[in-house]
Amino acid sequence: MNYISIQDIDSLSKWVKSAIKIKKNPLKNKKLGKNKTLVMLFFNSSLRTRLSTQKAAINLGMNVMVMNFGSEGWTLEFEDGAVMNSGASEHIKEAAEVVSQYADIIAIRAFAGLVDKEKDYAETVISGFLKHATVPIVNMESAVRHPLQSLADAITMEEYKTKHKPKVVLSWAPHPRALPQAVANSFVEMMQMQKDMDFVITHPEGYELSPEITKDCKIEYDQSKAFENADFVYVKNWSNFNDYGKVTNSDPNWTVTAEKMALTNKGKFMHCLPVRRNVIVSDEVIDSENSIVIEQANNRTYSAQIVLQKILKKL
Amino acid sequence: MNYISIQDIDSLSKWVKSAIKIKKNPLKNKKLGKNKTLVMLFFNSSLRTRLSTQKAAINLGMNVMVMNFGSEGWTLEFEDGAVMNSGASEHIKEAAEVVSQYADIIAIRAFAGLVDKEKDYAETVISGFLKHATVPIVNMESAVRHPLQSLADAITMEEYKTKHKPKVVLSWAPHPRALPQAVANSFVEMMQMQKDMDFVITHPEGYELSPEITKDCKIEYDQSKAFENADFVYVKNWSNFNDYGKVTNSDPNWTVTAEKMALTNKGKFMHCLPVRRNVIVSDEVIDSENSIVIEQANNRTYSAQIVLQKILKKL
Amino acid sequence: MNYISIQDIDSLSKWVKSAIKIKKNPLKNKKLGKNKTLVMLFFNSSLRTRLSTQKAAINLGMNVMVMNFGSEGWTLEFEDGAVMNSGASEHIKEAAEVVSQYADIIAIRAFAGLVDKEKDYAETVISGFLKHATVPIVNMESAVRHPLQSLADAITMEEYKTKHKPKVVLSWAPHPRALPQAVANSFVEMMQMQKDMDFVITHPEGYELSPEITKDCKIEYDQSKAFENADFVYVKNWSNFNDYGKVTNSDPNWTVTAEKMALTNKGKFMHCLPVRRNVIVSDEVIDSENSIVIEQANNRTYSAQIVLQKILKKL
Repeated sequence: MNYISIQDIDSLSKWVKSAIKIKKNPLKNKKLGKNKTLVMLFFNSSLRTRLSTQKAAINLGMNVMVMNFGSEGWTLEFEDGAVMNSGASEHIKEAAEVVSQYADIIAIRAFAGLVDKEKDYAETVISGFLKHATVPIVNMESAVRHPLQSLADAITMEEYKTKHKPKVVLSWAPHPRALPQAVANSFVEMMQMQKDMDFVITHPEGYELSPEITKDCKIEYDQSKAFENADFVYVKNWSNFNDYGKVTNSDPNWTVTAEKMALTNKGKFMHCLPVRRNVIVSDEVIDSENSIVIEQANNRTYSAQIVLQKILKKL
Repeated sequence: MNYISIQDIDSLSKWVKSAIKIKKNPLKNKKLGKNKTLVMLFFNSSLRTRLSTQKAAINLGMNVMVMNFGSEGWTLEFEDGAVMNSGASEHIKEAAEVVSQYADIIAIRAFAGLVDKEKDYAETVISGFLKHATVPIVNMESAVRHPLQSLADAITMEEYKTKHKPKVVLSWAPHPRALPQAVANSFVEMMQMQKDMDFVITHPEGYELSPEITKDCKIEYDQSKAFENADFVYVKNWSNFNDYGKVTNSDPNWTVTAEKMALTNKGKFMHCLPVRRNVIVSDEVIDSENSIVIEQANNRTYSAQIVLQKILKKL
Repeated sequence: MNYISIQDIDSLSKWVKSAIKIKKNPLKNKKLGKNKTLVMLFFNSSLRTRLSTQKAAINLGMNVMVMNFGSEGWTLEFEDGAVMNSGASEHIKEAAEVVSQYADIIAIRAFAGLVDKEKDYAETVISGFLKHATVPIVNMESAVRHPLQSLADAITMEEYKTKHKPKVVLSWAPHPRALPQAVANSFVEMMQMQKDMDFVITHPEGYELSPEITKDCKIEYDQSKAFENADFVYVKNWSNFNDYGKVTNSDPNWTVTAEKMALTNKGKFMHCLPVRRNVIVSDEVIDSENSIVIEQANNRTYSAQIVLQKILKKL
């Protein structure tokens, strides 16, 4: 069993319930991971993912080996048949198979390069590991997806929802640098698995996410209209998917402010963090009592823990 | 309970005695830290602090997660109300609160930038964590202080003192690069807590430490005079506090040599390490039997261990 | 007891047999390393060594502290009597003695610089630690040797040999960058300790390894001739030893291909990894059933584990 996409979850509602149980007693399954080793491979920066996934593994009694692949290891080649006479020192074939021998589970973080859309959306790195590794793989944010985050988001919404069918908005917001679409993509995929939620995506025209991901999700280009009566407002920047990896809009009118939140139904403010204050969201909103970003980050531990626990049980 | 400054110690003599007891049986409290997690965040290089603090936590049975914040995480913003549209990706508010959720204790190393005196002496980084974290904070060297080092120094002096009221000299020595004042500051603060020691600081004119730290400590500009009959000579370079962060003097006459040590009362040579041989101190002195720098470094483990132990007992 | 060279092994055949036993039950000696700490110091990149050595220590119940000395610590000075007023911040004398106080065993990786032959072949870094450390030292690849690799190679050959006296070839192959001679050197030294193996080294003229290492080993400049009837073909690039550290030959005719392997006695293909595909070896060969590179990497765990076990038993 791997955890590459939120769609690897058989029943989202059951996993969310289990995660909330784990949260109440995180050390209950401390024996489950005994003498099992999690290898965490980072190709990119990480704070929450690094610490929460490690913490989840520790809670399960696992050994953890952390490695910054870029700086501590070798540059990898992903193409079959490549003549490796320039940059890359090692092929994913060997790397994945070798690391599998030292690990019971491998977790990988490798962001989108935001240069070559096809390569990114082919999930070159994580697919390479998936293909050649001989142990389960956990996605700690790949080019296209961030399913540990989205599961934590689902847990958080379950904890904070106050009515049967809440309205959830995913809103784009401006950012000075080009960011991947991974968090937004996985949030959309997670929302598609929710049974009783009204979901709407709002972003400037031209900032559509991949239609293969959003499918028939409702898109509303008027942010204020989208916010009306929302119970949860999930805010995230992403760079342009069509004009791939470019920042073609940085309109400050999309910053989430108290005025906009006033349109909601005392909507909870969500963000995966790290967040640029007063660019993505005003201080007033993120510091308000309706901001649940810290709890989202807290739930990253239990999101990782339910995933590791499910995998460990099948080893 | 936090450990930000040596002044956070209620009774220096009692802590020193406890640390010396721990040193005799370091694994005695191995159960105290069970299922507790220390997160160590490094914004700067570290050898002794990195390994000794980790070792202390291991001796107490704690889990440890180590992170190089600069290279592995995100650039932090510390100013309230900042519009984060340039360098920094994450605000200390979120970072500190989030990490607190994965940690029982957070230890932080963040050196002085040596550019902006006010910012450094406001202890921007560690104060930011202190303000926003929800778990105890341990200072692994901040802009202004290095209290784990000074506690180790106090332990070492206790072990090596041969008379009731020893004379202790803190001597500046030359160094090619601009170094923070943190070690010297904390040593001064520690000496002010000692009851039975004669203390004198010696440095070139113009190299006065912050008067708010040295208070009424005796200053002697003639190094040789200061060394007379000294029982302990603690040597350390610091950059200029007045002409802030500058190297305005690199006079090799301040290097500690055997001739100068001959003026002392078979004085013990101390330094926090790393030390530049034949710049700060001659080989002859640091290699002599009166050099106790290796034992100082050894005591870093027990200094960290008594601090962690005190905090764990109050959790 | 230290493990600096394969020659530190008293009986290669006994160690190999013990390692194969460990492989069958890697957790059997989990109590041996209890409350013992391995400090792993990296001056260079590492994948297999980093993870397999750590895994071996975990299998033995040890605590592990990993440190990237270059980026996380201080630049070291190795010369006695140096006036340290430029680059280096700390002398090996202090560094080695200090780290010894936090460790029961220190493992070190420090590659050849490939600029100064004398300095490299004096094993400056690992010899410095060896001289000044007060605990056992394990070589995780030094300037001249990689004995954990060669022990893993010996284990792998023992597992795969099908006749009493197999023929083993060490073959040079081209590579775009200048690589150290360490792996080849240690392989040669290991082969000299084998009793019942026919050993031949093949490389272009001018690519002779140090004669102090190869001694009276057979050298065959015709690669095809060397491959005839070989049972094991160990392939590795190294930079020129005579024209020190230079790449004076990158002849693609030395790449190991299926045609060449056809000359062997269904010879097993070996390489320490990372390997540049279609430069060192064709895909066809490394992907064939006679390629045992993945198993070699697997045996790195048991090679490290027998070494750590032997040292722990003597502590």
